[in-house]
Amino acid sequence: MSKPSDRLRELGITLPAVPKPVAAYVPSVRHGSLLFLSGQIPFQEGRIAFAGMVPTHHGIEAAQQAARVCTLNALAVAADAAGGIDRIARIVKLVVYVASAPGFTEQHLVANGASELLVSIFGDAGRHARAAVGAPGLPLNAAVEVDLTCAIVE
Amino acid sequence: MSKPSDRLRELGITLPAVPKPVAAYVPSVRHGSLLFLSGQIPFQEGRIAFAGMVPTHHGIEAAQQAARVCTLNALAVAADAAGGIDRIARIVKLVVYVASAPGFTEQHLVANGASELLVSIFGDAGRHARAAVGAPGLPLNAAVEVDLTCAIVE
Amino acid sequence: MSKPSDRLRELGITLPAVPKPVAAYVPSVRHGSLLFLSGQIPFQEGRIAFAGMVPTHHGIEAAQQAARVCTLNALAVAADAAGGIDRIARIVKLVVYVASAPGFTEQHLVANGASELLVSIFGDAGRHARAAVGAPGLPLNAAVEVDLTCAIVE
Repeated sequence: MSKPSDRLRELGITLPAVPKPVAAYVPSVRHGSLLFLSGQIPFQEGRIAFAGMVPTHHGIEAAQQAARVCTLNALAVAADAAGGIDRIARIVKLVVYVASAPGFTEQHLVANGASELLVSIFGDAGRHARAAVGAPGLPLNAAVEVDLTCAIVE
Repeated sequence: MSKPSDRLRELGITLPAVPKPVAAYVPSVRHGSLLFLSGQIPFQEGRIAFAGMVPTHHGIEAAQQAARVCTLNALAVAADAAGGIDRIARIVKLVVYVASAPGFTEQHLVANGASELLVSIFGDAGRHARAAVGAPGLPLNAAVEVDLTCAIVE
Repeated sequence: MSKPSDRLRELGITLPAVPKPVAAYVPSVRHGSLLFLSGQIPFQEGRIAFAGMVPTHHGIEAAQQAARVCTLNALAVAADAAGGIDRIARIVKLVVYVASAPGFTEQHLVANGASELLVSIFGDAGRHARAAVGAPGLPLNAAVEVDLTCAIVE
């Protein structure tokens, strides 16, 4: 398995700039070798790329893409805190919140957008514990929010 | 206090088979002596035993039973990862998501189904920090999802 | 920067009594130097001070106040478990659930009520990773629920 930084290059992925929290919190807090991240929404080039509810405004595939955008933002935060993406030892836990219209029950399919990206970048170290949950609304009308916890090389 | 494995026997409980994740994630990730589990839904014999909303489709008692089924699935995962249920040192944190119809505000009563089962099996080591939260929808139309973190004997 | 106990005094804040869990769970569980807390709702003098949905029953400012009440309850729990508020080394992670009417997407503004209080008490050690999420309903009709994880001086 190649290094995560090699995989990013092979996948043609450039991590975005580290999203700035809008308030009195920080992108991540390290405790020992665990890195707790702030929830990430699908900011892309300074705006919410996927606003609205699933599936009303975004079908499953678009919502999966939103989950990927959130996850790349989370990885940008984690890489910045860890001293490079290759210093992320393991993706530990992923919680994916999906802004869900009444009756929507495929949050797990949306979350797969995040899960599969993590495995494509980190291989086995990207295989994580996960919860997928619906929400009636998320900050700034985000369609998806990704809450990631990872382990850092000590 | 008897061992958790003894208590399971006394309670007439057999842990189910370890539920298989449906996607690119794993049932649990260990970090040091902490075990982070994937969210568990009320799978029973290969199907969702409690589908729908609370209280529309399931009253409090049925939803508590759903929480118990989720929790047994979580314990199956934890026991498998830890090398047996007696190697679970402490239930640390429990988040219970309840698929909630508008106006439902008794998520804590539903969560008691999970909490009381944990204490009946583990005694004081089963007493955990907890959050109970409503959701407009959960994966595969599950009525309840249980997200467990536990500590393992080192 | 003054000690958190000094800051509380300067801010004119007295921590409330430790809220008693209503069921088979405990206010907090310590694992190593990490303290996992139970979700806190806006109990004040034995009743829910902020019941209902945001913004239907409580506007942003009232909901921020609800978040502060939840956070003070959480700090009472943490101080009790740690042996005093000055033994809280770091606020690690904050999840703020907001009981959200359809269309409400400013959970992050509500969460600022909690975040800003933490920084005012702990300074840089109060700067935390955070997720803000909507919920269709919370226990006992609470408008806000605060789920805190912190680190304790070893």
